[in-house]
Amino acid sequence: MTTEPNVTVDDVHAAAKRLAGVAHRTPIHTCATLDERTGATVFVKCESFQRTGAFKFRGAYNAIAQFAPEQLARGVVAFSSGNHAQAVALAARMRGTSATIVMPRDTPPPKLAATRDYGAEIVLFDRYTDDRFAITDKLAADGGRPLIPPYDHPAVIAGAGTTAIEIVDDAGPIDALVVPLGGGAQMAGCATVASAISPDTRLIGVETAAGDKNRRSMLAGERVRIPVPRTIADGVTGEIPGELTFAINHRLVSDVAVVDDSEIVAAMEFLFDRMKLVVEPSGALAVAALLAGRVSLPGARVATIISGGNIGTEQFSELLGRADLG
Amino acid sequence: MTTEPNVTVDDVHAAAKRLAGVAHRTPIHTCATLDERTGATVFVKCESFQRTGAFKFRGAYNAIAQFAPEQLARGVVAFSSGNHAQAVALAARMRGTSATIVMPRDTPPPKLAATRDYGAEIVLFDRYTDDRFAITDKLAADGGRPLIPPYDHPAVIAGAGTTAIEIVDDAGPIDALVVPLGGGAQMAGCATVASAISPDTRLIGVETAAGDKNRRSMLAGERVRIPVPRTIADGVTGEIPGELTFAINHRLVSDVAVVDDSEIVAAMEFLFDRMKLVVEPSGALAVAALLAGRVSLPGARVATIISGGNIGTEQFSELLGRADLG
Repeated sequence: MTTEPNVTVDDVHAAAKRLAGVAHRTPIHTCATLDERTGATVFVKCESFQRTGAFKFRGAYNAIAQFAPEQLARGVVAFSSGNHAQAVALAARMRGTSATIVMPRDTPPPKLAATRDYGAEIVLFDRYTDDRFAITDKLAADGGRPLIPPYDHPAVIAGAGTTAIEIVDDAGPIDALVVPLGGGAQMAGCATVASAISPDTRLIGVETAAGDKNRRSMLAGERVRIPVPRTIADGVTGEIPGELTFAINHRLVSDVAVVDDSEIVAAMEFLFDRMKLVVEPSGALAVAALLAGRVSLPGARVATIISGGNIGTEQFSELLGRADLG
Repeated sequence: MTTEPNVTVDDVHAAAKRLAGVAHRTPIHTCATLDERTGATVFVKCESFQRTGAFKFRGAYNAIAQFAPEQLARGVVAFSSGNHAQAVALAARMRGTSATIVMPRDTPPPKLAATRDYGAEIVLFDRYTDDRFAITDKLAADGGRPLIPPYDHPAVIAGAGTTAIEIVDDAGPIDALVVPLGGGAQMAGCATVASAISPDTRLIGVETAAGDKNRRSMLAGERVRIPVPRTIADGVTGEIPGELTFAINHRLVSDVAVVDDSEIVAAMEFLFDRMKLVVEPSGALAVAALLAGRVSLPGARVATIISGGNIGTEQFSELLGRADLG
């Protein structure tokens, strides 16, 4: 029995209208060497150039924009390992309100600083011992403030899906769409769009080998919880796929590939050297899978997404300097 | 008495036609933090996303494309500290011929590798002792092969000027154009365009404090030779401005600002952190001048150019790690 989705392509089109002139229409870059290395024609959608440096802005803004001003009067609350934090902080400011963000204590400092720069208040927690859900729910309930979830919400998924509309518009017919997988909103939103307007496009998610919750869940046919993964991809360290995102992805996604940390670093280096793009570890997942041959689509027209570029020069140098991460 | 220029805006338009569908029309990026920091509205033209990672491709291709196939039969010759090398190598290959490139022995390894990857043969020289002009001229004369100069040639200047056509088209009215200065072709080409189609735009060049040959030459009213500058900006280490480029720039450019190496590094870090852009030291000159207040244009609409992004991760990490470069 299939669960009916409660996100439709019409919801994504409505989100696209809400985001027009607010979110950036990010560019698609191509690279002859990437095509050579993969044997495919690859279109790289650069959400690293999205506002706040990651695709998350699309979902956060789309969610916040659906509350009336009086509902937003006391601010909004969110939890995030980083990119959703900045997205909610900026979207809240753009909607004339404030944000309180619950963030892991080990969030990379540039992400903490950027979130503060967007005017948010930050509440830190320990991701290995504290219950972030309890902390966040209490903050929201006590203040009577809307909670903006990072992925498991129809408005967040619809916002993220607007990326796929732009890809189909700008890149033309696409045989496969290869997307980083964390909580699953970007994949779910893009899958919703692709299945409706480009039904022959194969949908492939990519996550870390250390945090393969989506792959395990797909195989099991139900959401599987894993231990908090330890990986350099700090944007995708959740323990379980979202309920709504999993329902959509389980129905629409063909495959989930995994990459290890050394393959992510190799992709980050390739993107820097060859494409002059700054990409954070989570953002490089899909390109890593293509470059490492974990996803092999010879002759195909492949669209992929760089989901974010929020990494400091210090962390970048450290990661690139490590000899053996595999 | 003013020397009549032998590069006109019509030459640049002709170059733009030659380059259409061959060179990338590079994007213009903006950044709220950059505007905040400079007090201006800044449009950043990203030639780091040009083919071969730098603006040089425009001039090299425009020059090579003007030779008949029989003139190109034995290949072309060029000398370059890096970006012109890759540009000539790729342009030669695209025109169905080969390239021999004379390069300094201390060229960053990624630039040597990339030039070889584009199929060129490389001849190394020592930039502190050898006469690169003699070496290059001999290679060209012996082989009966066209020499493609890095900057001091009308076709190279006209090709570089196509950047300014795109800026004026895409960014709208511009009060000032701030451009990295080396041999001077990018500035001369862009100045030729701006003075013709946007005559109120103020033209400002930026070079290194250690290699301020253009500033000195402008002040002297004639080309001044300086010792080979030692700076991290390896793309702008020539000792004297070009004859033709200086004639144009002396006539059209209002100011030449200088930045030191630490200001270049700060700009590279800003561009990485805030704009997710990989930029090499020479490519960051103009943004460095804006961020360091060496060029101050409060309230103005300012276009600037990132002229190249060819830097390896190792060199990047090394430069960013240095505490004191000033």
